[in-house]
Amino acid sequence: MRLSRYFLPVLKENPAEAQILSHRYMLRAGMIKQESAGIYAWLPLGYKVLSRLEKIVHEEQQRAGHIPLLMPTLQSADLWRESGRYDAYGPEMLRMTDRNKREMLFGPTNEEMITDIFRSYVRSYKDLPLTLYHIQWKFRDEMRPRFGVMRGREFLMKDGYNFDLTREDALHAYNRHMVSYLRTYERMGLTAIPMRADSGPIGGDDTHEFLVLANTGESEVFYDEDVTRLKLGERAINYDNREEVAAICQEFTTPYARTDETHDAALFDAIPEGRRKVGRGIEVGQIFYFGTKYSEPMGATVQNAEGKQVPVEMGSHGIGVSRLIGALIEANHDDKGIIWPEGVTPFHVGIVNLKQGDAEADAACEALHDSFVALGLDPLYDDRDERAGGKFATMDLIGLPWRITVGPRGLKNGVVELTSRRTGVSEELPPEEAIARIAAIYANI
Amino acid sequence: MRLSRYFLPVLKENPAEAQILSHRYMLRAGMIKQESAGIYAWLPLGYKVLSRLEKIVHEEQQRAGHIPLLMPTLQSADLWRESGRYDAYGPEMLRMTDRNKREMLFGPTNEEMITDIFRSYVRSYKDLPLTLYHIQWKFRDEMRPRFGVMRGREFLMKDGYNFDLTREDALHAYNRHMVSYLRTYERMGLTAIPMRADSGPIGGDDTHEFLVLANTGESEVFYDEDVTRLKLGERAINYDNREEVAAICQEFTTPYARTDETHDAALFDAIPEGRRKVGRGIEVGQIFYFGTKYSEPMGATVQNAEGKQVPVEMGSHGIGVSRLIGALIEANHDDKGIIWPEGVTPFHVGIVNLKQGDAEADAACEALHDSFVALGLDPLYDDRDERAGGKFATMDLIGLPWRITVGPRGLKNGVVELTSRRTGVSEELPPEEAIARIAAIYANI
Repeated sequence: MRLSRYFLPVLKENPAEAQILSHRYMLRAGMIKQESAGIYAWLPLGYKVLSRLEKIVHEEQQRAGHIPLLMPTLQSADLWRESGRYDAYGPEMLRMTDRNKREMLFGPTNEEMITDIFRSYVRSYKDLPLTLYHIQWKFRDEMRPRFGVMRGREFLMKDGYNFDLTREDALHAYNRHMVSYLRTYERMGLTAIPMRADSGPIGGDDTHEFLVLANTGESEVFYDEDVTRLKLGERAINYDNREEVAAICQEFTTPYARTDETHDAALFDAIPEGRRKVGRGIEVGQIFYFGTKYSEPMGATVQNAEGKQVPVEMGSHGIGVSRLIGALIEANHDDKGIIWPEGVTPFHVGIVNLKQGDAEADAACEALHDSFVALGLDPLYDDRDERAGGKFATMDLIGLPWRITVGPRGLKNGVVELTSRRTGVSEELPPEEAIARIAAIYANI
Repeated sequence: MRLSRYFLPVLKENPAEAQILSHRYMLRAGMIKQESAGIYAWLPLGYKVLSRLEKIVHEEQQRAGHIPLLMPTLQSADLWRESGRYDAYGPEMLRMTDRNKREMLFGPTNEEMITDIFRSYVRSYKDLPLTLYHIQWKFRDEMRPRFGVMRGREFLMKDGYNFDLTREDALHAYNRHMVSYLRTYERMGLTAIPMRADSGPIGGDDTHEFLVLANTGESEVFYDEDVTRLKLGERAINYDNREEVAAICQEFTTPYARTDETHDAALFDAIPEGRRKVGRGIEVGQIFYFGTKYSEPMGATVQNAEGKQVPVEMGSHGIGVSRLIGALIEANHDDKGIIWPEGVTPFHVGIVNLKQGDAEADAACEALHDSFVALGLDPLYDDRDERAGGKFATMDLIGLPWRITVGPRGLKNGVVELTSRRTGVSEELPPEEAIARIAAIYANI
């Protein structure tokens, strides 16, 4: 992409309305524009990051054997009356009446609808296990929306629902979700720690939240530092193998890690002092086993092997896709701007032309741009007639992990400059080598 | 995908509520489930087709140089008061009030919001031309939603908006949209004919609708049969070349083609009788040049080269993405079910195991399945323990364009059977050749 043809409205000033850093940087980098309180338009750069996250979430869910579908944003009130949640949900539910006076709502979550879909079609235990998920816009009418996309009202969520015959099967589904979430966050360059969560009004003791450590997090967290060193890495995972999946869950949940809601001072004090950490965390996902809470009142049953009708065992599992972008920035930035991890960067590499209009520099930049495109990579070439300082400031603000700087002086010596946004380290090398270096970096991402 | 692990709830009976064929087949093939009048959940098979269409639309819009973003579903009423459309829109607009008593609406279209985004950031003619688009769920509260996704209330639309300095620039944007739409429909296996449309209350004479010929279409259409023979084919298009783009528009709009709204009997009668056709069509897109209709009242101006503030020239351009699926089925089916064009099929090939449990047949099917996956193709392997007749009926209903049938008898002779869904023609050939044949078919799609 040539910047002269793109729409990247960066702001020089810090917007007054933004209280936290990720919100400020998203506004300044031209990623989002507020349309109403807690409702954002995703400008091209923001939309690009959002799409990358969606793709990673889809890939990891499908790798775990979960099936995508798409439920609508609007739901009928009647469905929520069946579960008893219509009246219970309170003012966070956005309600409306259509032209035929039917009561509707903008879905804040989809337990009722997916349970209805299930009971409409599935009759036999032979069709289990089944996990269905979607990535769809939700609405929660927060009293005080703030922190940009971190606590928006219209937000993008992946929510998945498992249907199983037995509690053991459902717990395997729970574990499968935990592992697929760990892999999802890791691919995004995030360390998200599963922490035992408070089950709240849903009941049952099987629920974990995933928290990204950041000073601006909404929750206080207490953890054994060892937990931050755990990585899935490249290990192959057979999601059908219960023991293997359970062992990974065991590995990641053994070191102490809790939010203030479930914190146990005695357990925490048992951790060797040097590893005992207190900090703050941003919740980016939650998994939940809730058994027959919805299947029972809504009549979602299957015939088991003995010919008996039994309510299915269920759980629901969510990733806050739009909120993740805020968390990513809170965890990856410096005072010049965002620093995207390679797995989620909107463009793979930035190309800065120090002397726009210089025939040789222009040609070298065009050649770099086209080479990256030919390799299936997504470069952003700043071809504007601007001073180098302004171009560098834009690149630093929008946070592309790699930048190639091209100028007449370097070209005389046959080199361009490759700079890491994270370390700031620059290196001069021939253009072909810079291309090869970037290609190698993204080969496994 | 193994069917035993998928969620494909096909129905044996014709659903009583469906009046037209595409609606019936979408329900029977387990593609959609109605949630409320005109509001559908996209079950896995339907969601897969929807995703393929979205991908094609994105690719062709970006090929034409248009920039994707994503605007929210909910909009503030105030924005629509600025253009005067809030009161004018009538009962098709779904309105609601949030917990803080602010008036909101579920966006039926985005002219106001995109104009506001534009005016918030763009100041100079140097930032033009600019075309922004998104693919987002819209809501129109139809009095009588019907025909399934063809006239739903919550529907997926691509809507794009061009911003240009002059009328000539805006007409080039108009032409660029026409050509990119022609290519989009062609890749989907559809013949969509651009027809001069009635401009309605928006004014201006530059608007075309794209219609797919089908007996169930909502519009009567009159056309020169020659227009149905036009194809873009593989020609390379330089979207920056105004003459080239205009010439393609000329080519596709020269043969007479009009809906009843703009029909001109005298022009029609001038067509040689053998080519004169009357039929019905389904609208799947519309392009619109409307000049300064929104930019003027909303103050979307730029400074031109003479330093003067001028309102930008605009147009809006839409593709009905969810509705297209209905149109595709209306145009591609027989009495057994859907026949997907290769460009949009949810799975590239179906594999039917005639004798599930037979070690050799099972192994051959697994090998076929895995070979296709390794080639980046998406097979659906019917591995259920069902009779062959039921498996064939399901494959015919869901309409995969190619089927490979595997049975012990054929395997003894080293062959499987490859069947075209469209022609019904079958051929026996070794598995490796069947794989190569399928790979070749999809190589250019």
